Amino acid sequence: MESLFIEKKFAYDGSQLRSLFAYLEHGVLGPSIISWQGACDIPFTHMVDGEDLLAKAVIESDEMLHFIIEIFDRDLFAGVALQRMFASIARDYLQKHAAAVLNGQSLMREGDDIYWNDRKLSISIATKSPVSVMVHFAMNVTNEGTPVKTLSLSDLKLNPAKVAEDLMHLFKTEYQDILIATQKVRPVN
Amino acid sequence: MESLFIEKKFAYDGSQLRSLFAYLEHGVLGPSIISWQGACDIPFTHMVDGEDLLAKAVIESDEMLHFIIEIFDRDLFAGVALQRMFASIARDYLQKHAAAVLNGQSLMREGDDIYWNDRKLSISIATKSPVSVMVHFAMNVTNEGTPVKTLSLSDLKLNPAKVAEDLMHLFKTEYQDILIATQKVRPVN
Amino acid sequence: MESLFIEKKFAYDGSQLRSLFAYLEHGVLGPSIISWQGACDIPFTHMVDGEDLLAKAVIESDEMLHFIIEIFDRDLFAGVALQRMFASIARDYLQKHAAAVLNGQSLMREGDDIYWNDRKLSISIATKSPVSVMVHFAMNVTNEGTPVKTLSLSDLKLNPAKVAEDLMHLFKTEYQDILIATQKVRPVN
Amino acid sequence: MESLFIEKKFAYDGSQLRSLFAYLEHGVLGPSIISWQGACDIPFTHMVDGEDLLAKAVIESDEMLHFIIEIFDRDLFAGVALQRMFASIARDYLQKHAAAVLNGQSLMREGDDIYWNDRKLSISIATKSPVSVMVHFAMNVTNEGTPVKTLSLSDLKLNPAKVAEDLMHLFKTEYQDILIATQKVRPVN
Amino acid sequence: MESLFIEKKFAYDGSQLRSLFAYLEHGVLGPSIISWQGACDIPFTHMVDGEDLLAKAVIESDEMLHFIIEIFDRDLFAGVALQRMFASIARDYLQKHAAAVLNGQSLMREGDDIYWNDRKLSISIATKSPVSVMVHFAMNVTNEGTPVKTLSLSDLKLNPAKVAEDLMHLFKTEYQDILIATQKVRPVN
Amino acid sequence: MESLFIEKKFAYDGSQLRSLFAYLEHGVLGPSIISWQGACDIPFTHMVDGEDLLAKAVIESDEMLHFIIEIFDRDLFAGVALQRMFASIARDYLQKHAAAVLNGQSLMREGDDIYWNDRKLSISIATKSPVSVMVHFAMNVTNEGTPVKTLSLSDLKLNPAKVAEDLMHLFKTEYQDILIATQKVRPVN
Repeated sequence: MESLFIEKKFAYDGSQLRSLFAYLEHGVLGPSIISWQGACDIPFTHMVDGEDLLAKAVIESDEMLHFIIEIFDRDLFAGVALQRMFASIARDYLQKHAAAVLNGQSLMREGDDIYWNDRKLSISIATKSPVSVMVHFAMNVTNEGTPVKTLSLSDLKLNPAKVAEDLMHLFKTEYQDILIATQKVRPVN
Repeated sequence: MESLFIEKKFAYDGSQLRSLFAYLEHGVLGPSIISWQGACDIPFTHMVDGEDLLAKAVIESDEMLHFIIEIFDRDLFAGVALQRMFASIARDYLQKHAAAVLNGQSLMREGDDIYWNDRKLSISIATKSPVSVMVHFAMNVTNEGTPVKTLSLSDLKLNPAKVAEDLMHLFKTEYQDILIATQKVRPVN
Repeated sequence: MESLFIEKKFAYDGSQLRSLFAYLEHGVLGPSIISWQGACDIPFTHMVDGEDLLAKAVIESDEMLHFIIEIFDRDLFAGVALQRMFASIARDYLQKHAAAVLNGQSLMREGDDIYWNDRKLSISIATKSPVSVMVHFAMNVTNEGTPVKTLSLSDLKLNPAKVAEDLMHLFKTEYQDILIATQKVRPVN
Repeated sequence: MESLFIEKKFAYDGSQLRSLFAYLEHGVLGPSIISWQGACDIPFTHMVDGEDLLAKAVIESDEMLHFIIEIFDRDLFAGVALQRMFASIARDYLQKHAAAVLNGQSLMREGDDIYWNDRKLSISIATKSPVSVMVHFAMNVTNEGTPVKTLSLSDLKLNPAKVAEDLMHLFKTEYQDILIATQKVRPVN
Repeated sequence: MESLFIEKKFAYDGSQLRSLFAYLEHGVLGPSIISWQGACDIPFTHMVDGEDLLAKAVIESDEMLHFIIEIFDRDLFAGVALQRMFASIARDYLQKHAAAVLNGQSLMREGDDIYWNDRKLSISIATKSPVSVMVHFAMNVTNEGTPVKTLSLSDLKLNPAKVAEDLMHLFKTEYQDILIATQKVRPVN
Repeated sequence: MESLFIEKKFAYDGSQLRSLFAYLEHGVLGPSIISWQGACDIPFTHMVDGEDLLAKAVIESDEMLHFIIEIFDRDLFAGVALQRMFASIARDYLQKHAAAVLNGQSLMREGDDIYWNDRKLSISIATKSPVSVMVHFAMNVTNEGTPVKTLSLSDLKLNPAKVAEDLMHLFKTEYQDILIATQKVRPVN
């Protein structure tokens, strides 16, 4: 699994969640996780979460830290499981690195979301392209421009680029470790 | 997904990790998670983790809280991902419910293991039967009879049966939620 | 598997055979079978059966009882097999409930069609979306507006809404029963 | 799909339900359906239906018409669906060819079984080998030696070898037709 | 697997690489290989090779011998492996039938390409449609209009239609042979 | 993909064709190709090729160069395709490196075999374990002890260890290249 932090900021509008985005736009080939900072504003035409579509949800934020994961040869179930692993890894990381701010309180992962009490840090969706499964995961960098009560990396006093590099490293390690776990075990009856 | 806590104690020797164990021995049909308490002693003939086999690892404990998860129609990659989800769910649960003992320190999930500093709470393996993927996950109830420095539910002042019921409930919810997430999303290109 | 009979009549023009139609238009989540009444007129742009396309077939009827089945995580082969199961279930049901009209003669299922001698009751297609396999099956409510010699539920003196509810119930039971049959069997060598 | 009626009678004891039985014992290569006549007596060691195992079911008959279907590259769900298609095809065939005996009454398919009122004609199981999915389906030729109230081909005044040839032909046609239906359809979104 | 050599010449512009092209345009149903002669000019809108897209590659030739292979129920990995088998079969065939011209020198297959020293004979891509995997493979009939140093069937003194018929025959045989090899082998542990 | 040439000679008797052989016996983890020299003598109990079993074939040689390939998460069809790719790669390599001996004549690949006229160089089988697909491919190092007319690496004046290292390198490159080809292509409709 390759990774890339894209220095240039750009907005996420949902159209980035397409197969080979990392390869065709940023030269990152194969299973990958990429990250960048930018606004978030997803029109209904690009919204893929049926629940959000039915709820006519507004998904906006002035500045988020975005991640797109793409893996090949897996079904959507595995994609959703990896999405939640990423949320879990992020929660554990933020808990540790924002300990001073959190002051003994716990961040909570619920499904693919991370919360601090009723403040929502993140949004995420996992979906399927004809050649891959893909995850978008994003955390607020700021609380500006969000339609609900949010938590942001600014609140946690964390540097987005550093968080991105660290989380991508942790996720790559986990992914590789999961893969190895499928190749070193004897079958049972 | 069905679940069952088996009241009767019995030892885990690896032979329980076989397809339809929950159904044929305990009447639990379909995707399932079951749990019970008992000793753990896995001879090499039933050891399926190649890494343990190569290391000639001793896997023993006088009393553990065992879980066996079985799901159908998924590949081993998804099985390993679910195994880690279970470890993550267990970590979060124990962190919350043993807060008084942990005293502000964090339990850590590493791969499929849970640690408190250098004390290992759990063992786990995910493997494949011809009809399903299966996970064994077990946490020490006591530190007696373990070959390494361990942590146990006793240390955490937690009741194993209660932990079992709660974790099975949380896992079933997560599993169902993952499944729904694969059935409510539009594909991308 | 969820089911829904939609009270409001609307025409089927092929565009309804798209992934998540039941969820996004009618709130029915997951594997599902839905049904409604309405005209049928499928333009070539929405026709997915290559055989019909090559034959430049006219597919029209003034009033049909429509069904759309959607299942996830299965290949098209399973989708076609379920389509034929549905046709078989429908045949058996109609044979029993229209006994007085049929007067000892048998309805015949041939592939995905149901016939009474040379009179065709139904049309059907199974196809694949990027996230699911889907079946459209429809029976004439009337013989008006059909391009071939047809049989209709009116001929059989049957109430479409009752037929819909009954067939959806029977199909859900069969589907659930098939699923269970995959989860209670030991593998062979 | 190839087929073969084996002239030589031999008993079915469950051990015939193994991969490549048709090829290695009877030279029939690839997806296949074979048939023969013989007693049926399945000891628990060869019983693969978990439900029968839990019920400690006795599965015996002095003379049955056996079928074994083997297909490759499909999951067990498709195997079970084909099993039920076979039962449906058999029901329709027997209804037509034993019309004089049945005297206007209907044979009923329920899941993988065929009944005439409370008289059971058939037994069946679908399972998975490491390289294929397999179905055993058998109909009583006589009612001798059966543990429950049964119906037999003798009751229906039908010649077992003729029934075997006809059903194998019908099933091959249906299988081929299902396969073609997966190769002539355009995908939807 | 069916095959067809289309007598009428037409240009390949990438739009032919779509599911059911052989069936809907030329009546060839199921797994297939078809071939025809014509120019080649692939605009970026129809270019599917990400490497070519990134390189802004020009893919043109005044006259090529085109092949499109379509198979169902396989993943893209198998599609790419078949693509390379086709290249290997073509190399072996051309080596034998153009021996006089090649004069003891060897054609070389590299990945999906065939070379004579630095002269490139062929282009190819394998991709996935929602219902199949597809391969386009084409060899220059002439060296006119190609953007790089090329080899052509004219150089090799070979008749394109004869080459097409022979290669399609050889590929069908290989495909069928691979399929049989998956249906005559016992599993291992 | 990892590779290993095992310096120690040992006989191949078919029992080496089991999942995780490379990992559990030689520490090579994940998709792999390993090689060694040794006699070959496969008793019927370990013979997995149904064709050989039916023919009661004798498979023996005093000294062969053995290869075992194991890949995960692929079906047997892909395994057989890779087996033939390996045979093709071997043929091309031997043609080039034994040019002096072959004296302008061509080695021929037929299915999974390599021939020089009527002299058979190699044997091979591809099969499936519950967790992987596996290939055994072996070339005669000597013609001693073979039941048919054979060709050997000795005839070709080639050093087995060198051939092993070179072919493993070429195969790893091809495998990696195939994998990349599945991850850089846009889907079609």
